[in-house]
Amino acid sequence: MNHEALDGIMHPKAIAVVGASATPGKIGYTVLDNLIKQGYTGTIYPINPSAEEILGLKCYPSILDVPGQVDAAVITIPAKLVPQGVEECGKKGVKGLIVITSGFSEVGKRELEDEIVALAHRYGMRILGPNIVGVLSNSDGMNASFAPYLPLPGKATLVSQSGALLIAIDAATYTRGVGFDKMFSIGNMSDLDFADIIEWLNDDPNTSCITLYIEGFKNGRSFMDVCRRATKPIIGLKAGVSAHGAAAAASHTGSLAGAAKVYGAALQQAGVVQASDLDNLFDRTLALSLQPPMNGDNLLIITNGGGVGVLATDSAERYGLPLKFAPPEVQAELKKHMPDFGSAKNPVDLTGMAGNEWYHDAVKYAYAHNWVDGLTILYCETAVTNPMEIAQSIKAAIDESGVNGKPVSVSFVGGERSEKAMAWLVEHGLPAYGAPDRAVNAMAALREYARMKAIASESITPCGDEGRAIAMKVIEHARLDGRDSLTEIEAKQVFSAYGLPVTRTKLATSEDEAVKLAQEIGYPVVMKIVSPEILHKSDAGGVKVNIKDEASVREAFRTIMANAKDYNAEAHIHGIAVQEMAPWGTEVILGSVNDPTFGPTMMFGLGGIFVEVLKDVTFRVAPVSSSQALRMLGEIRGAPILAGVRGESPRDRAAMAETICAYSTMILDLADEISESDANPVLVYAEGKGVKVVDARIILKKK
Amino acid sequence: MNHEALDGIMHPKAIAVVGASATPGKIGYTVLDNLIKQGYTGTIYPINPSAEEILGLKCYPSILDVPGQVDAAVITIPAKLVPQGVEECGKKGVKGLIVITSGFSEVGKRELEDEIVALAHRYGMRILGPNIVGVLSNSDGMNASFAPYLPLPGKATLVSQSGALLIAIDAATYTRGVGFDKMFSIGNMSDLDFADIIEWLNDDPNTSCITLYIEGFKNGRSFMDVCRRATKPIIGLKAGVSAHGAAAAASHTGSLAGAAKVYGAALQQAGVVQASDLDNLFDRTLALSLQPPMNGDNLLIITNGGGVGVLATDSAERYGLPLKFAPPEVQAELKKHMPDFGSAKNPVDLTGMAGNEWYHDAVKYAYAHNWVDGLTILYCETAVTNPMEIAQSIKAAIDESGVNGKPVSVSFVGGERSEKAMAWLVEHGLPAYGAPDRAVNAMAALREYARMKAIASESITPCGDEGRAIAMKVIEHARLDGRDSLTEIEAKQVFSAYGLPVTRTKLATSEDEAVKLAQEIGYPVVMKIVSPEILHKSDAGGVKVNIKDEASVREAFRTIMANAKDYNAEAHIHGIAVQEMAPWGTEVILGSVNDPTFGPTMMFGLGGIFVEVLKDVTFRVAPVSSSQALRMLGEIRGAPILAGVRGESPRDRAAMAETICAYSTMILDLADEISESDANPVLVYAEGKGVKVVDARIILKKK
Repeated sequence: MNHEALDGIMHPKAIAVVGASATPGKIGYTVLDNLIKQGYTGTIYPINPSAEEILGLKCYPSILDVPGQVDAAVITIPAKLVPQGVEECGKKGVKGLIVITSGFSEVGKRELEDEIVALAHRYGMRILGPNIVGVLSNSDGMNASFAPYLPLPGKATLVSQSGALLIAIDAATYTRGVGFDKMFSIGNMSDLDFADIIEWLNDDPNTSCITLYIEGFKNGRSFMDVCRRATKPIIGLKAGVSAHGAAAAASHTGSLAGAAKVYGAALQQAGVVQASDLDNLFDRTLALSLQPPMNGDNLLIITNGGGVGVLATDSAERYGLPLKFAPPEVQAELKKHMPDFGSAKNPVDLTGMAGNEWYHDAVKYAYAHNWVDGLTILYCETAVTNPMEIAQSIKAAIDESGVNGKPVSVSFVGGERSEKAMAWLVEHGLPAYGAPDRAVNAMAALREYARMKAIASESITPCGDEGRAIAMKVIEHARLDGRDSLTEIEAKQVFSAYGLPVTRTKLATSEDEAVKLAQEIGYPVVMKIVSPEILHKSDAGGVKVNIKDEASVREAFRTIMANAKDYNAEAHIHGIAVQEMAPWGTEVILGSVNDPTFGPTMMFGLGGIFVEVLKDVTFRVAPVSSSQALRMLGEIRGAPILAGVRGESPRDRAAMAETICAYSTMILDLADEISESDANPVLVYAEGKGVKVVDARIILKKK
Repeated sequence: MNHEALDGIMHPKAIAVVGASATPGKIGYTVLDNLIKQGYTGTIYPINPSAEEILGLKCYPSILDVPGQVDAAVITIPAKLVPQGVEECGKKGVKGLIVITSGFSEVGKRELEDEIVALAHRYGMRILGPNIVGVLSNSDGMNASFAPYLPLPGKATLVSQSGALLIAIDAATYTRGVGFDKMFSIGNMSDLDFADIIEWLNDDPNTSCITLYIEGFKNGRSFMDVCRRATKPIIGLKAGVSAHGAAAAASHTGSLAGAAKVYGAALQQAGVVQASDLDNLFDRTLALSLQPPMNGDNLLIITNGGGVGVLATDSAERYGLPLKFAPPEVQAELKKHMPDFGSAKNPVDLTGMAGNEWYHDAVKYAYAHNWVDGLTILYCETAVTNPMEIAQSIKAAIDESGVNGKPVSVSFVGGERSEKAMAWLVEHGLPAYGAPDRAVNAMAALREYARMKAIASESITPCGDEGRAIAMKVIEHARLDGRDSLTEIEAKQVFSAYGLPVTRTKLATSEDEAVKLAQEIGYPVVMKIVSPEILHKSDAGGVKVNIKDEASVREAFRTIMANAKDYNAEAHIHGIAVQEMAPWGTEVILGSVNDPTFGPTMMFGLGGIFVEVLKDVTFRVAPVSSSQALRMLGEIRGAPILAGVRGESPRDRAAMAETICAYSTMILDLADEISESDANPVLVYAEGKGVKVVDARIILKKK
């Protein structure tokens, strides 16, 4: 259905403008004028009950009066009239609607928006919008928007949640020389959303890179699924990553901007390359739309200036592509194309004496060499070289190398002549930038894309046990009890049902039972109060550790009970948990949230000050495979601690990864039940010795 | 002398080109041609023994044959002839030399370079270069370089250590619209260096901002002193901050690139704003050359597009200027200049309906309001507004506000019309950028400048005692001993001499003496082996802690002695240190290096995993005032630990800061003696309880 509607919207044989106007300046005029004058070759039907003819076209009072088939309709009538307009489009058999009109959920009118979507669906139509600028397509010669012109032609397609930004970017394509085939304004995403459009664009022969301006998603998981399946590069700029910015985004489009860290994780898991800002979105789009991914870490830089070489070297490190020296035979060959005082290491410095031939020969050789995974070519405008000729030499060298599928980026630092040479390079498929940092960043985008696609395409093998039946029994019992949190014992039962290694923990309701359980478990034991009303057990004097014999068990039982009553006389005491005392290990924390956008999401971090002071944690949307989990262990700042520092042996990262994987299975399986949870601390032992969840907490979703 | 030489170089009444050539393409031709054709109004003397006339000017065989006074000489003859050329210039009474010729220290010919400097100095001349492009000045109408043209006129001056980059930047001034009055190529800095030129530029009426491209300094301290005294903004791009990049810089200019962290600290202490890359150098130069510093944290953003508003909000947080909501009365007033669905918070969203008047009125009111410390104005090109008119409205609003001395930055996102409007804004003194991120970053530069100048202008009150006499006695004793490191006891004597609070530590050479000292110090005590050959005392079984009585002292003495002999039978044993056992506190580490560029430099960090795993340390070039030291405590990631976390009371940061200050006095006073040192651990107690240096190490400079 998506494809049919979007085919209708993007390749209509006939299009209606519902609300066409004869008054210049009105949106209904601009859209019609744009359709007529900017290359659309299908039939255009202006719809307006009070006009006979607009801009030379016969006007119809209602779309129902149009004689022929209509594939798409642009709606520009006032919001309150839109339902009727949608209904008439439905009756007419229109496939898709471009609802430009604003005044819906973005100003609180959610019901009106729901109404038009329901109406559209009743007739098998899909809605783009409302509250949008429209859609533009170079390859279809169609400007079905009130943006003044089609963008500079190119191979990327923009999908923008901000209409104002789309118009501005449209204009900027010309001054920046970054071309787009299509632009979609998606506004309130009442119906067609990012996922639908990405799915359609992945099959669009005129789009080689999908560029997103994102404020928030309605359904993060369908977005992730579509991106993961996509075979084209996708790049996103997520706005609203600051606390203050997120608030602004919410008021702007009425969609909830999720936490920056969760968005970051989700985009990465989905294989979406991220842009840091608007300039970066243009730069990375250019590279991703023109060049293949970079499938290895060996970046070679060729330059005619030491200064820009050093700057590029700094940038390479900054963007995760630290330079390595090229192998001796590469250096030996490159040495032939430079004076004695040049450098054949990396950056390869051909020196300011480098002319067309040296550039040509060095680039041709380096690009073809197996060691080189990606090539960045820098040029500083000099008084004795011609930038256009250098550009042509570079392009010829790449073409003559006989090699394909390896990325190249270029930076010329200079004036007008360099600008023209770079525009020529871009026209010929080589992304070129006015500063070395940007060329290296572009290469980093191509590397990130390759890395993420490899990860996103991994299949996820679930870990742990399928403990739903047991878990639901525990949860239902708590709900019957009127509670929306589980006790530690209950939470451990749920964890255990999914194969998480919890400390053995049993509930004693009497002193004698406590003694019996302690003997079963084996000394030393830990004893803790179990009460739904006492969450901070230590504060209540409800925890005793390292209990070594029967007498101490009895004493602890009495003390804990007395302390609990002192602390909260009204508390319901389930009893006292008697637990295996786990030997000390490296303290980590696992946790989950049910993110409003992405659903069940895992958090991992080191315990203690790492989480409390440094916020050194990392997220993944569930499910998390063991190999993904291993990456989580490696990406926190405290990662060396798990690898073993100060003479300590490495920790059992494999077991930790399995535990994260099983945990993620649990929160996904119980997505409708668990709101938040944590396992804190989890103790990680030396390699082969496993992990142990010492304390557990589950907060249920309110039902 | 600097001013005279640089006055001579930059404002010469007569200039000679030694090595002038009649062959187009030769540097000696280009320089002469540039001088003649690009506005220089003084007298030009070509010097070449084998020509009668070049480019219409009479040519002289030697500068000594020139009839009149010559203020400056550009030297373009081959390197081996330069000494003779310099000597002749000296005899002629030239004030300053622009030595373009390469082939000196950058290719290992250090002696030749030293020779020409010595010769120049003998005649009271100064040298700019060698290995440079030359100098360019718009206000002097002088292009004394082989760069093809003068830069776009502007108020900034560039000082570049890379000649190639200078030529490229020269060209880029036109395409980027960022103007410069002067450009200095300083190459090998054999004589005139950054400091000399900055000092001169600070008095140059045509320079409002000093822009530096830095690969390395010869003398970091003189650079810092000059920058600290400067009254104009200075911005620097330091190349070679990656490990790999630093290596490239060394091979490039033969100067040592210091550690990135030390450079970062030094530039900050000197009040130099830093640029992250070449684009950023242009962007920040534009803002610093046109706008006053931002003297408070309240940034207000006015926009016509929610999208760019959100992006700018994210950027503001990223660059250390997180937005706050404007006060209610500001919001109430701004609400008058927007439709109902606009937002008067911050960003102030005038909405896409905003035209010239709304912009004008909102900007005029906001700019004049006391709460606003800086204003960033964003505009997204729309179909219904005219970018030039918006620009003019903004400029008029600022002018009419009646307020001065507050910074403004602007971003227009759009196409050709926006570009033209931004160029107009820049011509009229308002820095304007093609993306919101850049406009906010520019404002952050103005804020950083204000913050750093406030700090750099603080006077530094030394702390601690003046212990030089005692320290030198200890050091000389060690040197007589043939050692280049001090024992712990000696290091503590030095520390103590400068007022650092070390644990009381005395040397016992016999069991009985150990008992006597332990009683003096008071139990419990710590005992440690003292031997220049045993640096890792614990590994040698040379440390015993928590010794509580006489019997234990005796036993410890014997055990430590025996262990030490087992560990290294050849070691010289000075005896056993008996120390006060300090109560436990928060562990931190202090240290110093004698940086090759900046000299004695302090390091501070939290102990244990913070330093070992997270490298969570911060640097300052000595001396460090107590208030600077307090900032060091605040800028590490683990700072909350010193502020008190998990129910712990705040640590004694004041005492810690005093200790850092005293430590910095020590390393500066003993700069010729101490190579490296550390105090590790230093224990920090609760507020009012002070700090204690538990272990100390000093490595001497080799003499």
